[in-house]
Amino acid sequence: MQASNNIIRKAQIGDEFAIYEMICELALFEKALNEVINTPEALKIHLFDDHICDALVVEFENKIIGFALYYTSYSTWRGKCLYLEDFYVKPNFRGSGIGSLLFDEIVLIARTTGVKRMDWQVLDWNEAAIEFYKYKKATLDPEWINGRLYF
Amino acid sequence: MQASNNIIRKAQIGDEFAIYEMICELALFEKALNEVINTPEALKIHLFDDHICDALVVEFENKIIGFALYYTSYSTWRGKCLYLEDFYVKPNFRGSGIGSLLFDEIVLIARTTGVKRMDWQVLDWNEAAIEFYKYKKATLDPEWINGRLYF
Repeated sequence: MQASNNIIRKAQIGDEFAIYEMICELALFEKALNEVINTPEALKIHLFDDHICDALVVEFENKIIGFALYYTSYSTWRGKCLYLEDFYVKPNFRGSGIGSLLFDEIVLIARTTGVKRMDWQVLDWNEAAIEFYKYKKATLDPEWINGRLYF
Repeated sequence: MQASNNIIRKAQIGDEFAIYEMICELALFEKALNEVINTPEALKIHLFDDHICDALVVEFENKIIGFALYYTSYSTWRGKCLYLEDFYVKPNFRGSGIGSLLFDEIVLIARTTGVKRMDWQVLDWNEAAIEFYKYKKATLDPEWINGRLYF
């Protein structure tokens, strides 16, 4: 597979099933599958009705093999930001450069919409991802702890 | 000062100056004042025109002495969430319980709006804040690294 054989496009109605499957694959890798209480039906509403978030998908031979889900966030220091919540390419499709193209597409959206910063998080033991983000010249800051309350 | 002498209310036009001052105070404490490129004018637009974020302020004797700034975020695992971006009470006004009341007010907003999780971040060396969040029965997870690109 060559990266050029893939199509990167905005998610559309019907894609929520493939995206949801990949959300679960990524959560499993991140040892947090038990935390997933979202559903494809709710995801459809969030993406296409309420527009709380947006997503790009990667298509290869009519199958969705990767996605990036993001939303507008806010920094009191910087102003409007873009938060990249999930970024994933199925394991069998890595190594062709498609992940890099997908990431660059999100950066382009961030630049085009005029946000001041693009944020995401990576697990401290996910070395492959950390190397990838270093290659993308990202700042990686381990000094912050995530605080959470669940409802 | 007793906590009961304070008023906690939604931020309104004109409060952006006091909020901005406290954003800078907090950024200074967090050793990141150089990262603040926001302005009171931009903050006013974000809060009251574009509604990218919301804020509560604490008033004591007609002066604003604390604030909490938050926005709607999204988790692919949980769905709609509330992100508490800044939470601050001026040093001289701590110890009366007003910070606790302000935090509880944000939790109430999170519950009322039906979000599935409330998130924030705390610096790993900010022991007083960490103790406060433990007292609030928050989950504190240091396993995630912040990735960032600046524009």
